[in-house]
Parts: sequence; C-alpha cells; structure tokens
Amino acid sequence: MSQDGSAQDAEQSHFQYIAATPRIGIGMDASVTPLRHGGLSLVQTTDFFYPLVDDPYMMGKIACANVLSDLYAMGVMDCDNMLMLLGVSNKMSDKERDTVIPMIMRGFKDLAEEAGSQVTGGQTVINPWLTIGGVATTVCQPNEFIMPDNAVVGDVLVLTKPLGTQVAVNAYQWLDQPERWNRVKLVVTEDDVRKAYQRAMFSMARLNRTASRLMHKYNAHGATDVTGFGLLGHAKNLAKIQKNEVSFVIHNLPIIAKMASISKACGNMFGLLQGTSAETSGGLLMALPREQAAAFCKDIEKQEGYQSWIIGIVEKGNRTARIIDKPRVIEVPAKDRDGELW
Amino acid sequence: MSQDGSAQDAEQSHFQYIAATPRIGIGMDASVTPLRHGGLSLVQTTDFFYPLVDDPYMMGKIACANVLSDLYAMGVMDCDNMLMLLGVSNKMSDKERDTVIPMIMRGFKDLAEEAGSQVTGGQTVINPWLTIGGVATTVCQPNEFIMPDNAVVGDVLVLTKPLGTQVAVNAYQWLDQPERWNRVKLVVTEDDVRKAYQRAMFSMARLNRTASRLMHKYNAHGATDVTGFGLLGHAKNLAKIQKNEVSFVIHNLPIIAKMASISKACGNMFGLLQGTSAETSGGLLMALPREQAAAFCKDIEKQEGYQSWIIGIVEKGNRTARIIDKPRVIEVPAKDRDGELW
Repeated sequence: MSQDGSAQDAEQSHFQYIAATPRIGIGMDASVTPLRHGGLSLVQTTDFFYPLVDDPYMMGKIACANVLSDLYAMGVMDCDNMLMLLGVSNKMSDKERDTVIPMIMRGFKDLAEEAGSQVTGGQTVINPWLTIGGVATTVCQPNEFIMPDNAVVGDVLVLTKPLGTQVAVNAYQWLDQPERWNRVKLVVTEDDVRKAYQRAMFSMARLNRTASRLMHKYNAHGATDVTGFGLLGHAKNLAKIQKNEVSFVIHNLPIIAKMASISKACGNMFGLLQGTSAETSGGLLMALPREQAAAFCKDIEKQEGYQSWIIGIVEKGNRTARIIDKPRVIEVPAKDRDGELW
Repeated sequence: MSQDGSAQDAEQSHFQYIAATPRIGIGMDASVTPLRHGGLSLVQTTDFFYPLVDDPYMMGKIACANVLSDLYAMGVMDCDNMLMLLGVSNKMSDKERDTVIPMIMRGFKDLAEEAGSQVTGGQTVINPWLTIGGVATTVCQPNEFIMPDNAVVGDVLVLTKPLGTQVAVNAYQWLDQPERWNRVKLVVTEDDVRKAYQRAMFSMARLNRTASRLMHKYNAHGATDVTGFGLLGHAKNLAKIQKNEVSFVIHNLPIIAKMASISKACGNMFGLLQGTSAETSGGLLMALPREQAAAFCKDIEKQEGYQSWIIGIVEKGNRTARIIDKPRVIEVPAKDRDGELW
C-alpha cells in the first residue's frame, strides 16, 4: 500500500511549504482560539499525509495518532471530536479500494476510540495518491492545556519516543530495491531492518496521551511533538517561541536500533544524527523541571511499558537549539533486549 | 490553474465514495458533538476538492464559502475557527506555485474574515493535483443551531442560489476544446458561456450567511446545502432524515441563464434538469413555513441583492424527494436583466 519513491520524496520535501501555512493561533502544534463562552478555548489541529507502512489498519492508527499528537503536545488529554480526511487513489482497483480503505478507516476509528474520542465526519475524495489524515478538536478550560512557552534555565529536555521512524520505513522499502539495499547491507541485516520497521510502525501508532497527562502531573513547562522537521527542527521551533531567554542543548539521541548505522552509511541523506531526519507521529519533546524529569520517565514506563529519555538541558540563551558535536546515541531497545520488540 | 479533464472527472465521480465517510453526528452537513461544558455543542465540518475556476483568489474564496456553507445549513451564523487544507501540485513550477498559492490562501482568508471568522492553522502537502479545502468549527448553545429534521406538511422549499455552477465551469473549459464546443455552439454563444462562468464563480464565492441568519428569523424547519449530489440528491438526503412523515416535491428549477440549454444539448451528461448535476458551494435548500417563505425571499434580496426562490412543497409522504415531470426552468438572471451579472 505504500507509495512509490516519488511520494516518499514528496513527503520529505513538503516541509518547505509548511512555512506558508497560516499559523495564527498562539499554540504551536495546535491552534488555540478563545471562545465567546465563559473562559473556554477551542484547541484544534489538522494533519494529512501519505502512507508509510504496508498495513492499512496500522496506517489508519498512525494517521490518528499523528493528528492527536498535536493536542497532546499542548497537554490536552481529551479530544472532543475527530474528522477523517481521505484521498482514495485513482490507481487502485475496485478490489484494492474496497479492501484497503475500510481497514484504514477502522484503524483510524479504533485508535480514536482508544483515545476516548470519536470520529463524527470527514471528507473523502479521489486523488492520484492515497492520502490519510484528520482533524482533532477539543474545547477546554485554561487549566486543561499547557502553553508551550514556559521553559526556564535549569529545566531538562525529555523525549517520549525514539527517533528513526522514517529511516526504518525507508530501509524496509529498500529490501526490495537491490541497488539501494547494497548501500546498507554491510551495516545491517534484513532481520534488523524488519524489526526496526515493526518497532517504528508500533511507535508511530502509539498515542502520546499518557505523556500528555503526565505533563500536568510533573509540571511540564512546554512541549512539542517531533514530526516533519526532525528533532532539531522542532527543538528550534519550540526554543524560538519561549518567553524566557533560554536555549536548548541536546546531548542524547535515542534511536530505533541500527537506524543510526543506516543513517551513517547513507551519508547526509537522512540527517538522523544531525536531528534533521523527518519523523512521523514522533514523541513529545518537553521541558521539565530537573527534579521531576526522572520521576516522569519512571512513571510513564511503569504505566505504558515504554521508555522516555532525558536528552538535553535548557540553558540561558537566545532562543535557539542545538545538538552537541558528538551526541550519545542510545540504541532502542538496548542490545541485551534485542529479542523484544520494545 | 484549473485541473485537466481527469481531475474534473474525478471530482464528479468522487461522490460514490462519500458514502463511505463516517457521518456519526446527528447533523447532516456538519457534525454536532455535545461537549462536557454546560450545554454547549461542537459543530464542525470539513471539505476539500480541486480547482474549478482559473482565478486563484476566487478559488480560495470558493473553497472557504463551500466549507462554511455546511455550518450555515445548520443555522450556525458564526464560525469560531477555520483551518486551511492545501495540496500543492508537484507539477507546478516554482514561479507558478509562488504566484498561485498565496493568492488562493488570501482568497480563503479574506472570505473567512468577511464571515467574521479567522484561519488559525492548517496543513500543506505536495500532491499531484492542486487541492484546496478547510475545516470550519464553532461552539454554540442549542438555540444557536437549527436541526434539519423538522419539516412539516404545508412547508415550502426555498433555494438560495441558482443551479448550474458545474455546467457553467465545464462549458467555459470547452471554449478551448473544439470537439466539445461543437456539441453546444448551436444553443449558446461564447458570450453566454463567459457570462455564465462569471455568474457561477461569484455565486460559488458568496456566503450563505445571510440565508443562515434569516433561517432563524423566519423559523426554518431545516436545511441542507446543495453540493456534490445535486439538488435532488440533497433533497432526498434531507427528506430521509425528517422526523415527520413528509416528502419533498420540487416544481421550479432556478438555473444560471443558458445552462439548461447546454445541459439539454449534452443529453444526460449533467442531469441538470433531473436535479442530479453536481454543484459546488451551492445555495441552501430549506423547508420554511408557507406563510414566511415569501418574506424570507424578499428580505434576503433586500439585504444582499440576490434572489431566492420557492421551488417546491412539503407534502405527506415517506421521506423521499422528487422533481415533477416538467419542472419550470427559471433563467437567472431573467432575459430582461441579461446585461447584469446578477
């Protein structure tokens, strides 16, 4: 079901146009609009893109997780309503369409329900490329969302999912493309790539909802979710809007096992170690008070069974972000747990 | 800027898939979700499609009017927030893109502002076809929207814009396609087609907001907006959800001047006189108490300078809709006003 190379390239390159999208709201990932009704705000976001994985049901889940993630980055735990956006490829046969599209829709709806939300509408059109996305909307009181601009010197940066999702997705596609596979087969095995792909798929389909809830419990000073601009791009965007004169310095890069090796073997193609590799439905990147960060990571692992990582610090500065020269790569999962999916 | 023939065809044919779109909300055009906050409801809708006119600024306006129209059909006069959805064609040159896209966005935003709303976010991707659409959301109290299911026997049906927008758009494209133009040149002149195209463009870019406000003043019993399914399709959908045992009978078809002739000359291609020709950003079709309908039409013409028409009646029946055998075609504008755009 995944698109041909050109679609992937387009997905990578579309980010140059995102800058053209109006972002008038105060929020960064979601727009925040004060309502006429007593103190309430409308928080909403939209996202759509192209298939990345060959399992339509999982693709629906990923699209849903990706849309909701913008709300979760604002500390919004409950989504009141979702709409689904679908472009059905005109290159699909009737049979492909009638098989694949309901599975995508079911994946999307199932995850929306898991998130305590519902899908009440949407729009479906015919399009050359299969397109999947949605709209997530919630109405909440001021204490129900966390503005992303309150990081202070001394905070630490926490990331809730490993990097490398798009590297894993691409490497998996290369298994069928000998000339590309030849570039990386010295550093990874087929089995490595299949595992990484599975890990990426499940990671992308996972909700950032628990992380969002714990942002309140551990007094997060702001967050964003890591998607198309890569870790550094989103760190820079988050730094830029801070109220205080702070900068973000990143020391650690948690990466899906073996994907750092692939990125290195491919030269600058992905920029994974430079923090510029695009992610889909990535983790939340948040600024937490130093004394709370370890408890946050412990709590989320206890509740969900997934690790989070302290990856950097907030220091005095002019609202920029950088990754240090030789960041520590944390392989996820660690070598001694390679048998596990996570 | 308009797409090639295949895009147009797809736009026509995509409606078979709309049925697959989840429509769980109680509303018909927009989804209505009760909120946790004292009696408030979230009303929202989304729509996206492909360019129809060669003026990018007007295309932006049409996309915006088309999205908002779903709220107006619910009697919602104020839209709290809008998001914009854009697919930038990968076949555009840099220059085309940098010229056309900002104009589309400005058209969309300008009309959103004219509607008293604002665009606070959105998503832009690269796509083979240029795509434009949006999301319209409002939070309101129960008395601020009108459920569409309260038509009663004795009501009349009112339509607030003339039919024939897509016929006009197609005919205009045929001016450059001799083999197609030959099929209709005996019944219309080039000037007729250019005028019809201008009329269609301005009609599609016009908000149904005044009509929405007057639905409250004149106690409308429910409405829908006429888009992809054509007049009869939407009339049937509206009839189907009625609480009372009623049916809709349509006697009059207000149609952009000369477009009925084109439709006849093309056989069953459009189905304009059968009510099956797709419209974009069409008028509101509403059930109004008989004694209020004339006043509604007079009031809207006084406020906006545009006609509305009583096109049919609500009678006892089993929730169906039909057009009588030989409906009266009302040319818009009338022959003696042909010099005016409207």
